[in-house]
Amino acid sequence: MLGPMRTRPSRPAADQRRLHRWENRTELPLATASLVFLAAYALRVLGTGLPPAVHDLCIALLLGCWLLFAADYAVRWRLSGEGPRFWVRHGLDTAVLLLPLLRPLRVVPVYEAVRRRHRRPRLNLYARVMSYAGLAALLLGFAGALAVYAAERSAEDSTIRTFGDAVWCVCATLATVGYGDAVPVTFLGRTVMVALMAGGLALLGAVTGSFASWLLQVFAEEGENTGRPPAS
Amino acid sequence: MLGPMRTRPSRPAADQRRLHRWENRTELPLATASLVFLAAYALRVLGTGLPPAVHDLCIALLLGCWLLFAADYAVRWRLSGEGPRFWVRHGLDTAVLLLPLLRPLRVVPVYEAVRRRHRRPRLNLYARVMSYAGLAALLLGFAGALAVYAAERSAEDSTIRTFGDAVWCVCATLATVGYGDAVPVTFLGRTVMVALMAGGLALLGAVTGSFASWLLQVFAEEGENTGRPPAS
Amino acid sequence: MLGPMRTRPSRPAADQRRLHRWENRTELPLATASLVFLAAYALRVLGTGLPPAVHDLCIALLLGCWLLFAADYAVRWRLSGEGPRFWVRHGLDTAVLLLPLLRPLRVVPVYEAVRRRHRRPRLNLYARVMSYAGLAALLLGFAGALAVYAAERSAEDSTIRTFGDAVWCVCATLATVGYGDAVPVTFLGRTVMVALMAGGLALLGAVTGSFASWLLQVFAEEGENTGRPPAS
Amino acid sequence: MLGPMRTRPSRPAADQRRLHRWENRTELPLATASLVFLAAYALRVLGTGLPPAVHDLCIALLLGCWLLFAADYAVRWRLSGEGPRFWVRHGLDTAVLLLPLLRPLRVVPVYEAVRRRHRRPRLNLYARVMSYAGLAALLLGFAGALAVYAAERSAEDSTIRTFGDAVWCVCATLATVGYGDAVPVTFLGRTVMVALMAGGLALLGAVTGSFASWLLQVFAEEGENTGRPPAS
Repeated sequence: MLGPMRTRPSRPAADQRRLHRWENRTELPLATASLVFLAAYALRVLGTGLPPAVHDLCIALLLGCWLLFAADYAVRWRLSGEGPRFWVRHGLDTAVLLLPLLRPLRVVPVYEAVRRRHRRPRLNLYARVMSYAGLAALLLGFAGALAVYAAERSAEDSTIRTFGDAVWCVCATLATVGYGDAVPVTFLGRTVMVALMAGGLALLGAVTGSFASWLLQVFAEEGENTGRPPAS
Repeated sequence: MLGPMRTRPSRPAADQRRLHRWENRTELPLATASLVFLAAYALRVLGTGLPPAVHDLCIALLLGCWLLFAADYAVRWRLSGEGPRFWVRHGLDTAVLLLPLLRPLRVVPVYEAVRRRHRRPRLNLYARVMSYAGLAALLLGFAGALAVYAAERSAEDSTIRTFGDAVWCVCATLATVGYGDAVPVTFLGRTVMVALMAGGLALLGAVTGSFASWLLQVFAEEGENTGRPPAS
Repeated sequence: MLGPMRTRPSRPAADQRRLHRWENRTELPLATASLVFLAAYALRVLGTGLPPAVHDLCIALLLGCWLLFAADYAVRWRLSGEGPRFWVRHGLDTAVLLLPLLRPLRVVPVYEAVRRRHRRPRLNLYARVMSYAGLAALLLGFAGALAVYAAERSAEDSTIRTFGDAVWCVCATLATVGYGDAVPVTFLGRTVMVALMAGGLALLGAVTGSFASWLLQVFAEEGENTGRPPAS
Repeated sequence: MLGPMRTRPSRPAADQRRLHRWENRTELPLATASLVFLAAYALRVLGTGLPPAVHDLCIALLLGCWLLFAADYAVRWRLSGEGPRFWVRHGLDTAVLLLPLLRPLRVVPVYEAVRRRHRRPRLNLYARVMSYAGLAALLLGFAGALAVYAAERSAEDSTIRTFGDAVWCVCATLATVGYGDAVPVTFLGRTVMVALMAGGLALLGAVTGSFASWLLQVFAEEGENTGRPPAS
């Protein structure tokens, strides 16, 4: 797309600075585009009774946002000066480019950054990890429920008939409960679900682990404050 | 409810002391009210053969307890002097006010505090976390089973026909096993179940993590006591 | 059973020594009795085609072993000199007395102790925790499968028809997978299953956590040995 | 197979060196044989429409690879000079010899070693554990799906009719979700699935735990870089 580039191990500092400036400037517009993308996709999937013009608008918005993401990827690729190695090194970005529904996951760090700039009081380390991973799981689950619903609603023998069923199935999957009363049967639906399992397992493991660590910390501090060491 | 209040970042020490005194004094009555609330709700849901007067009494008790909780919330809000930010900062309290079934979770720290005052021997840190999280999961599961049973027992195509089914379903959910033989089908029942998944995952993750840490500690100490370092 | 005893906070050292000696001496016979108990129970449940005399022998063995456990509990209670507080402090022992199927769990530390006496090379800390928790989960699962099979095989609408089904169901429960194709329907079977969930979750959490810690340790050591610090 | 050997606690250094040299030389050929074994097994199971000659070739490849594994095991056994204790000490190798489908798990460390030799930039500790455990889970899952499909496709009342069903069932099992819509019913299929549960639980626990630790590390570092300590 940008043609072959020379692979240089280290770039001049000027490029580094330009890359940094680019990322700082595009952070907020791209986060907004991510949310617009998710909203347009949701409207496209859920708005079955809407006039065709709205559907066309949604598709236009989806395409426009995706072109924004692609342009940003291309600029950052060129500024990084890494050549094809960029695809592997920034594997998450490449994956997000191919699966733009994952894009809203990048909203979370931006929210954190904006909050920091406004000098809001920062949360405890564990609370930040929990809120980050929990919010990411929420966005991932919402995008996944939309994709599963779109894939399953017209399938034969499907047990996912309403968007509520899709949300229920996604919740049961992310929590690794898996009742099996609402399960995808199409190839696309199952693929989305497997991706959700992988992502959800990691994110909820982070939430659970942080919660456990935080609880241990709270109890340990309380033990110190009362002045009596806990029995060994 | 209390009208707009000025947002002041720091309150005079006198207010802080009054807030602290308030919390110390209301701790035990509120914990009692929480258990009364849970008991009245249980009686309301499970006592199908009881005379209507008992049902009316239960509703009166539920309402009375909830008014107590609301009054306590209002007083603490005013004493904190934080204005509308109080709603967010004390998000757990706000959630508990809206979902009073979660209230019994606050019984556990009170039990711990009472125990400490009576100078009972304290448990190991891991044992305290385990007992706290385990007890919280038990109360959460009981309240959840009641709510699910109330929502599901009269639903069409429901697989939860008895309170035993509801308890079984809640156990399978909290342990993330999820057999799927007894599953909620109503919107309310599913919402309760999703809340249970989130809470149960975190609480049981804390129990599991503490148990693992405690086991590692026990084995590490044993290795030291026998005087022979374990093989690397 | 032994009548009220005076509650004394600390016992003379002689009693402590006698208690310790008692435990050292009864360790091996009790562990043997535990395995005999489990074997007799297994024969009782699984040996449907055996002559009645064998069944009677099994029942006699079960009763005899249980009496041994009760006698040991009584002696240790007396030697500890703790009065009724002994029931709570040694809650695990009390539970094991009431549910002797849990007794084989105590075999694992004895095996470890015997191994230590014979000066076998000791395992890594994580390996010991993993093998202990894994072996305990195996014994717990076997006892649980027997109990579930005994409760379910003659129940109406049961999906557990063979011992293989019970083992399959127990495996799916301990791993928190929970397919739901073989599920207990009786009150007793479900109670056993809930106990298995609680125990299995904790034990397998310990196995998983130790495995993760061990893997991290192995990789960290490998990074040091090659002399190159891993990229941050 | 090699006849009884004398048990010697420590071998001369020359043998140690020879063993080390043997392992270094056979590493790459054996890893290749492992992948050939997996590929031949996959072709054997999935290639239903292929001519019989291909099937015979697959069987020949499987047998040939297995003989290579057995020869390597025998040589290492002899060089180690440990006698029958070798079977226990190298329990994983013995298991792999009996269940050669597990063999591809050894490919992962070889890949890591080859990468190290070529002086590629090393990953973060958590990233390495995650990629190792994730890749191992992937290979284990693929081999397990093949074995389950081979066992189930011709079984009566089976819910696993296509290879896609087998993969779906394995994914749901490894993630401990367990929907129950596609479940093995044969003895062999269930045995494979239980092995997958055990392996998958440990491996994914390692992935999850490393991810949580890594996330905590990233957030902790970020907190330090911004120069403001997080609120306690």
